Amino acid sequence: MDCSTFVLFGATGDLAKRKIIPALFELFLSQKLPTPFSIIGSSIIEYTDDVFHDHVKSSIDSFSHHSSSDPKMSDFLHLIRYCKVDVTKDLEYERLYSLIKAQETALHISENRLFYLSVAPQFFGVIVKKLQESKIVQTNGWKRLLIEKPFGHDVTSARDLNEKLSRVFDEEEIYRIDHYLGKPMVQNLETLEFANPVLQTLWNNEYIANVQITASEIVGVEKRAAYYEKAGAIRDMFQNHLLQLLMMFSMHFPNGFSAKNIRQEKRKVMEAVRPIKKEDVFKEVIRGQYGPGEINGEQVIGYKKEPGVDPSSTNDTFIAARLWIDDSLWKGVPFYIRTGKRMKEKSTRIVIEFKNTKYNKQTEPNLLEIGINPESEVSLQLNSRNPLKEGEIEPIHVDFTPEQRGIPEAYENILVDALEGDATFFAHWKEVELSWQLVQPILEAFEENLVPLHDYSSGSYGPKAAHILLEEDGFFWWSIDNKNEKEDIDKDG
Amino acid sequence: MDCSTFVLFGATGDLAKRKIIPALFELFLSQKLPTPFSIIGSSIIEYTDDVFHDHVKSSIDSFSHHSSSDPKMSDFLHLIRYCKVDVTKDLEYERLYSLIKAQETALHISENRLFYLSVAPQFFGVIVKKLQESKIVQTNGWKRLLIEKPFGHDVTSARDLNEKLSRVFDEEEIYRIDHYLGKPMVQNLETLEFANPVLQTLWNNEYIANVQITASEIVGVEKRAAYYEKAGAIRDMFQNHLLQLLMMFSMHFPNGFSAKNIRQEKRKVMEAVRPIKKEDVFKEVIRGQYGPGEINGEQVIGYKKEPGVDPSSTNDTFIAARLWIDDSLWKGVPFYIRTGKRMKEKSTRIVIEFKNTKYNKQTEPNLLEIGINPESEVSLQLNSRNPLKEGEIEPIHVDFTPEQRGIPEAYENILVDALEGDATFFAHWKEVELSWQLVQPILEAFEENLVPLHDYSSGSYGPKAAHILLEEDGFFWWSIDNKNEKEDIDKDG
Repeated sequence: MDCSTFVLFGATGDLAKRKIIPALFELFLSQKLPTPFSIIGSSIIEYTDDVFHDHVKSSIDSFSHHSSSDPKMSDFLHLIRYCKVDVTKDLEYERLYSLIKAQETALHISENRLFYLSVAPQFFGVIVKKLQESKIVQTNGWKRLLIEKPFGHDVTSARDLNEKLSRVFDEEEIYRIDHYLGKPMVQNLETLEFANPVLQTLWNNEYIANVQITASEIVGVEKRAAYYEKAGAIRDMFQNHLLQLLMMFSMHFPNGFSAKNIRQEKRKVMEAVRPIKKEDVFKEVIRGQYGPGEINGEQVIGYKKEPGVDPSSTNDTFIAARLWIDDSLWKGVPFYIRTGKRMKEKSTRIVIEFKNTKYNKQTEPNLLEIGINPESEVSLQLNSRNPLKEGEIEPIHVDFTPEQRGIPEAYENILVDALEGDATFFAHWKEVELSWQLVQPILEAFEENLVPLHDYSSGSYGPKAAHILLEEDGFFWWSIDNKNEKEDIDKDG
Repeated sequence: MDCSTFVLFGATGDLAKRKIIPALFELFLSQKLPTPFSIIGSSIIEYTDDVFHDHVKSSIDSFSHHSSSDPKMSDFLHLIRYCKVDVTKDLEYERLYSLIKAQETALHISENRLFYLSVAPQFFGVIVKKLQESKIVQTNGWKRLLIEKPFGHDVTSARDLNEKLSRVFDEEEIYRIDHYLGKPMVQNLETLEFANPVLQTLWNNEYIANVQITASEIVGVEKRAAYYEKAGAIRDMFQNHLLQLLMMFSMHFPNGFSAKNIRQEKRKVMEAVRPIKKEDVFKEVIRGQYGPGEINGEQVIGYKKEPGVDPSSTNDTFIAARLWIDDSLWKGVPFYIRTGKRMKEKSTRIVIEFKNTKYNKQTEPNLLEIGINPESEVSLQLNSRNPLKEGEIEPIHVDFTPEQRGIPEAYENILVDALEGDATFFAHWKEVELSWQLVQPILEAFEENLVPLHDYSSGSYGPKAAHILLEEDGFFWWSIDNKNEKEDIDKDG
C-alpha cells in the first residue's frame, strides 16, 4: 500500500462520525493503513486540531467497539490534522494545499492523494473543480476521488455530475461508493457462484424459477425527511444498492477476476435488463407508502405525519419491481426486487427459488438463501424424509452462519480497497448510467402519477399489490421468519 | 395393517434380545403394531411363557430406553406366548401350529402369519421345509418370511438357499433383512436425490468426481471369531451392506416409487457394475487385517491374537474396493468402498466429491457428505471468502443434523414394513445374487492368495494400500474428523 494522504471532506458530518472515523481507527489498529499516512479532516466548521481530535475520540467512543482511551489513540491522532474549508472559496483550498504539503514533508509521504467527498451532493461539482484550480490534484503520485451517493438525481443530473468529475479525474481514479458492495456477503457472491461447481451448475434459467432480492427496514424516515422526500425508495435504495445486488448476483463468469473484468460483466447484466416503458411501469413496479401501524408492539405514525413530510406527500417508501434479464443465462427468470421502510423485519437477502422436479409437485421447492444483513449467512432448503413423522417428506435447512465477530465493516473494506487502488467493489460510471436509464421511466411514471400509490401498514411485508405481482407468475415472496409459509401480507394494502 | 401372528425363531438369541424384542415393545407403545396381534417366541430352549416373559422384560431393561415396569408391559406380555421348537423335529411344529391356531382363535386373528428366522443360517432351509410339511404356511390369509443375513456363503450356496425358500415362499413373500436398509438416512437417500432438484441435477458423472462409501468400526472381532473367521469383512459387510448402499445411492430415477420399481432400479445398478476378474482383483481390491495398536488411548491386540482366531489366519478384517458402474449416469466415476474393524472411528457415511471448475484449481472441491451412522446428517462443503482472512477462499460446511431423539431404530422400520407388506427396504433375490456374482471372484482370489494381505495398525484408517488405490486416480479418502486434510494413514501399512 502506497504511503498517501487521505483528505476527508465532511469530516464533522454524520457519516464521518458514524462510519468513516471508526473504520479508519479499526484499520489503524489492525495495521491495514499505509505507513506513513496523513489524514486531513475538513469541513466548513472552524475547529482546531485539538477540537477535531476530541471529535474523533467522541466518534470512537460512540460508534466503535474500541475506546478513545486505547493506548494507540495518541499515535492515531498524530496522523490527523484539521483544516476548515468553505468549499466555495478558492483561498481556503490554498490553506488546505499548504497543510497537505506540510504533512507530506513532515511525514515523508509521496504525493499520493485520496479525496473523500462525504458531503451533500450539490458540493461534489464545486469541490472537484476547485481541487483542480488549486492544483492540489497535480501530484507526482496518484490521485483518487472517493465519492458518496447519491450520484445524480436522474439520468441527466447523473451525466452532468459525471461530466464535471471527468474533467478532473479519469474513470479509473473515481471510486463511487455503494456501501452495499462493501458488505462481506456481497463481496462473497462471486466466490459462492464461481468457486463452487455445485452452485455454478445451478446458476441459470434451467434450474432457477425466480430470484427474490429484498432490502427491508424497520425504521421509518427518521430525521431524513428533507432528503427522503426528494429521493424516495426508488432513488435511495433501488437505483443503486438493489441494482448493484442484481448485477453482482447475475453476472456471468468473467474472463479473469480483475476489477475491469468483473465490472464489464456487471455492465453486461444492466445492458441485458429489459427496459420498462413509462406506460408499462404500473404493471411491473409497485409503489407504496407506509401508513400507521405497529412495530415491535408499539404504535407508529404513518409517513405523511412524519416531521418534515408534506401531509399530501406521494413519495414512495416502498418499491417492488419485476425485472427480466434477457441474456443466455437468465432469459425467462423473473427477478423480484423490493425495498421498503417500516416493514416487519430488517433484512437484506437474496432468495433463489429452484424449479421443482417431476418427483412430487407437492414437495417444497429447493431454496438457496443468501443473507447479507443483519447476518452474513448461507442457507439451503432441501427436502428430506422425517423419520419422526413416518417418512413424511418435509423441508430441512442446511445453514452456514460464519463467525460474525471481527468481520470487517463495509466501510473498512471500502477504505482499504480505495487506498489499494482496487476498484472491484465500486460502481463504474457505466453501471450508474445504465441504472439511471432503467429507472428514468419509473421516475417519470411516478411523477406523472401513472402508478398507483399503495398504502401499507407499518410492520407489514408491504402492500398487497407487491404480493399480487408474484402471484401473477405463480410465485410468492419467501419470508425470512417462516420459510415455508406465505408472508403475512398487509390485508389493507 | 392386517391383524397377524408374528412367529420369532431364535427368540432367546442375541439379536432378539438386543434388537427385535425392544423394537416390538417400542412399536407396541407407539401403537404401530396390528391389533389384534399375536407374538410367538420359539427356540430350542425349554421355557414356560412366564420364563420367556421374564426374558422379554430383561431384554427391555437392558436394551431399550423403556423399562419393564412400564404400565403397558402387562398388555404387551399378554400378546406373547412361547413354544419350544427343535427345528429339526416334525412333532414340535405340530405343537407350534396348535399354539398359533389357539391364539388366532382366542384373539380373533385372521390367518396372516409372519415367520422371522433369527437363527443360524444352517437352519434356514430346514425350518422353511418343515413349515411347509406341517402346513403352518397354508393359510387363508398371507404368509411372509423375514430372514436375517447371511444369505449364503458364496454364489452357489446363496442360490441353493434361495431355491429351498422358493419352494415354500414366493419372492414377494420373502423379506431379506439388510438392516442397513432400515437406517433412516439410507431410507432418506432416494428422497434426498429425487425430491431435490438441486441434488438431482448434480447426481451424475458430469458433476461428480468420485464417491466414497465407508463403514468403519472401532471394535475388533469381539466374541464372534467362530463366525467371522469364516466370513471376513468381505462377507460380513461388503457383499451385503456396502453393496446395498451403493445400489441405493446410484439407482436411477424410478418409474414410480413402488417397491417393485425401486428394486428394479437397484438391480439395474448391480447389472451395470463392471465385473472384476479373479486375476484383476489384486488391482481393484485391498485386503487388510488389523495388527495391534491403540484405540482411545488403550493398547489393543492384533486380530491373530484374538480369542478363537487361528494365529496364522489370513482372514480379512478390512476391505477397500474400486468399483465402476458402466451406465449412462455413472460411467467414468470411481466408487471407492471400504469397511474395516479396529479403525480410527465408527462411521458409516457416503462422501460425494464434485469435480472442480476452472475458477481456481487451488480451491477445495465441493463435497456432499451423507452421514448414516452414528448420526444421521447431511453436510455440504462449499467455498466461501473468509472476511476475517482478507477474503481468502476457504471451505465452509453447511450442515443439517436432524433431531436424533425418537428416530426409529432400523429394526422398528424393518418390522413395520414387513408387517405392512412393504418390501422397498428389503433385499430382492436378484440384488443378492448379483452381489454374490460380483464378490465371487474376489472370494476366489483371496482363497488362492492372489491378493496381498496388508497389515494395518488398530486405530488407523486402514492399510496404506487403500490410500494408494485412490492416489492412483488422483484422489484421497475424505476423513470425517478433518474434512480438508488427508487421513492419517497407517505408516506401517
